[in-house]
Amino acid sequence: MTAALKPAVRIDEKRLAARLKRLSEFTEPGRPWERTAFSDLHLKAREWLKGEMSASGLETNIDAGGNLIGRLHGTSNGLGALASGSHSDTVPAGGRFDGALGVIAALEVASAMRDAGHRLRHPFEVIDFLAEEPNQYGLSCIGSRAMAGELSHEHLDFKAADGTTLGQGIRRMGGDPDRLIAPLRPRGDIAGFVEIHIEQGRVLEGSEEDIGVVTAIVGITRIAVDIGGRADHSGATPMGLRKDALVGASLMIAAFDAQARQDYYAPLVATVGKLEVHPNASNVVPGRVSFVLEVRAGQGQPLTRYHKWAEGTIRTIAEERGLTFRTRIIGRSDPVTMDTDIQLAISDAASASNLKYRSMPSGAGHDAAHVALFAPSGMIFIPCLDGRSHCPEEFSSIDQIVRGAQALVDTIIALDAKN
Amino acid sequence: MTAALKPAVRIDEKRLAARLKRLSEFTEPGRPWERTAFSDLHLKAREWLKGEMSASGLETNIDAGGNLIGRLHGTSNGLGALASGSHSDTVPAGGRFDGALGVIAALEVASAMRDAGHRLRHPFEVIDFLAEEPNQYGLSCIGSRAMAGELSHEHLDFKAADGTTLGQGIRRMGGDPDRLIAPLRPRGDIAGFVEIHIEQGRVLEGSEEDIGVVTAIVGITRIAVDIGGRADHSGATPMGLRKDALVGASLMIAAFDAQARQDYYAPLVATVGKLEVHPNASNVVPGRVSFVLEVRAGQGQPLTRYHKWAEGTIRTIAEERGLTFRTRIIGRSDPVTMDTDIQLAISDAASASNLKYRSMPSGAGHDAAHVALFAPSGMIFIPCLDGRSHCPEEFSSIDQIVRGAQALVDTIIALDAKN
Repeated sequence: MTAALKPAVRIDEKRLAARLKRLSEFTEPGRPWERTAFSDLHLKAREWLKGEMSASGLETNIDAGGNLIGRLHGTSNGLGALASGSHSDTVPAGGRFDGALGVIAALEVASAMRDAGHRLRHPFEVIDFLAEEPNQYGLSCIGSRAMAGELSHEHLDFKAADGTTLGQGIRRMGGDPDRLIAPLRPRGDIAGFVEIHIEQGRVLEGSEEDIGVVTAIVGITRIAVDIGGRADHSGATPMGLRKDALVGASLMIAAFDAQARQDYYAPLVATVGKLEVHPNASNVVPGRVSFVLEVRAGQGQPLTRYHKWAEGTIRTIAEERGLTFRTRIIGRSDPVTMDTDIQLAISDAASASNLKYRSMPSGAGHDAAHVALFAPSGMIFIPCLDGRSHCPEEFSSIDQIVRGAQALVDTIIALDAKN
Repeated sequence: MTAALKPAVRIDEKRLAARLKRLSEFTEPGRPWERTAFSDLHLKAREWLKGEMSASGLETNIDAGGNLIGRLHGTSNGLGALASGSHSDTVPAGGRFDGALGVIAALEVASAMRDAGHRLRHPFEVIDFLAEEPNQYGLSCIGSRAMAGELSHEHLDFKAADGTTLGQGIRRMGGDPDRLIAPLRPRGDIAGFVEIHIEQGRVLEGSEEDIGVVTAIVGITRIAVDIGGRADHSGATPMGLRKDALVGASLMIAAFDAQARQDYYAPLVATVGKLEVHPNASNVVPGRVSFVLEVRAGQGQPLTRYHKWAEGTIRTIAEERGLTFRTRIIGRSDPVTMDTDIQLAISDAASASNLKYRSMPSGAGHDAAHVALFAPSGMIFIPCLDGRSHCPEEFSSIDQIVRGAQALVDTIIALDAKN
């Protein structure tokens, strides 16, 4: 069968919108939109989701990592699955699209193929990964980490404030923590994974583009910096006798910003979002400033290069100003490159539908970053209003959603034809 | 009688040290050195002080402003008083010298003159001003303000957390708030006032000088600045799309510092001691930064010039960075120039004793700033260890104290001979 003879598979806008709305209604009363992982509401929402999967002809199960999976058989034997999905949990007082869109759009891919009588050669899986957002156990992306074999015994013993362990939480959601010592899916078991997600930024909206083809999920380095000066009386200490920790920190922050803006060839962001001044009184020269420098980049080399430059800059400014300094890495993750064949399939699919697209890194973490450890993975971004996310105002229009979902189904069909 | 025939008046080191020690012992148990204004301890300490004044031959009274005054008659009629003093209250967990030194040294001047049989032509007053430090009523320098007629009905109604008014507090300390509608001392009633105080900075210690001849008590302008940016996800927002309030604030703070250091001819200090970042999370581009810019100078013109420059700089940087800004003056006091004849008398006295001295502004406020509104005033600074003040470690050696007290008595005697 050639592509030209295939029946067109079209996204059903009404069904997609209705399912998104229905999932959003599983929310804490009075705190829209809140459906935190491991909560009763989360269980109820998944019960509904399982029903929708079954009604759409998918075989459902919950794997040892607590991931809810709906599976269609393929027409050929011995092929790995194509898969799509995201997560159904939200942050507290979050939005209706982050995660939910990726799960519902994957389900719509299955439903739309069924409507059109289109069967894939590969098995197809719709995955609702467990607990992607930060939660009471202090670890995010639980389900996708479990699938990749990234959960250690230590992780499973992480305790919530209510005294339960992460292992117990996973069991509550239908998983089996005793089986989480190795990757749940051997390499090859998933032949390709595509996650659709709202951008959570303003790049696509600003450039009036429909689709972001994610090139990489950024690596993050977070460095805690303490600058030590001398807390002196502001009136009694002439400028020349001061060791002002805040002036030192300010010179550093201005330099961090200028340097990150210069890195034209390797998009990178550097942020000081958190900063504390001690003793923080208007008539005392700041004696100590603590801040966190966060650097993100889609490639490892610029990240390492910037980190090294920043350490040197902190040293130089501190020495010039007679300040002490201490730096400590408090978080580091490597960039994860998305599969180039999948990137190509997504951009071809977008072109075929006359959608405007751009290649771009994802600045936020996603389940796809963990799936990429054992399967070729890609991500589709769609625009969202004013970059708002993790808040009730989070919004993408149904047109934007349908264009993204269409690109998703077209990508899955193209990958199915290829491998 | 010529100066050469006068008996030498010498400071008694032991008596001075013993009185300083005794006054310091009026402290909250377990919280040395704490004797806050309006407290029972403050009343007890003043009771002791009044006894010391009486025993030294001074007539004591408490004026309507709650100032404890010990007075010696002069040998001539119709002359205004020469006066010296400071305050016996401390900040919470403060030191043994700030304020206390100025009161005890003034009392030692009276005692030393008595020992030497030296009588002044002018009356001489030892003044313990009420409540110089910040206190529960939210206004400092209560006694010296009262003397200058600076207290309004509104001030007297200022309420403490315990529900009492400042007026009631003054009454508790022996004053009469009903009589505080006009200056307590008409112009001419005090012919000259000299306050001795620890420097509370490191200038004299660093230059190994004995005496600071205060030229002016600085004026202070405090400006609250709010910088508005956009709180965006740090990962999802490329550098070019950011409106980072902290980067803007950092550029401003670096500029404030550089400008203040350039002002060679008019010593001025500029400080951002207090700064808050919102929302203050390491993965969120700062959406808002609030800080206080404090500028101090001994002359009005440089203060005004710097303030104007700073407002322009804030505007320029905010506009360049697409930030909003709001500035609001939250405090302003004019510089107070010390009397030039008194400055000259102090430096002559220092020279005569072979003391090293320098002219310098006082960066901190003092009672002398209020007395200067109705009487020729001056201040003597002595070095203190490492600039520490308002803390238990506050320290000046007895040698440093005696040199300062000797300069004080010599200054009073010189002023007495002159006017």
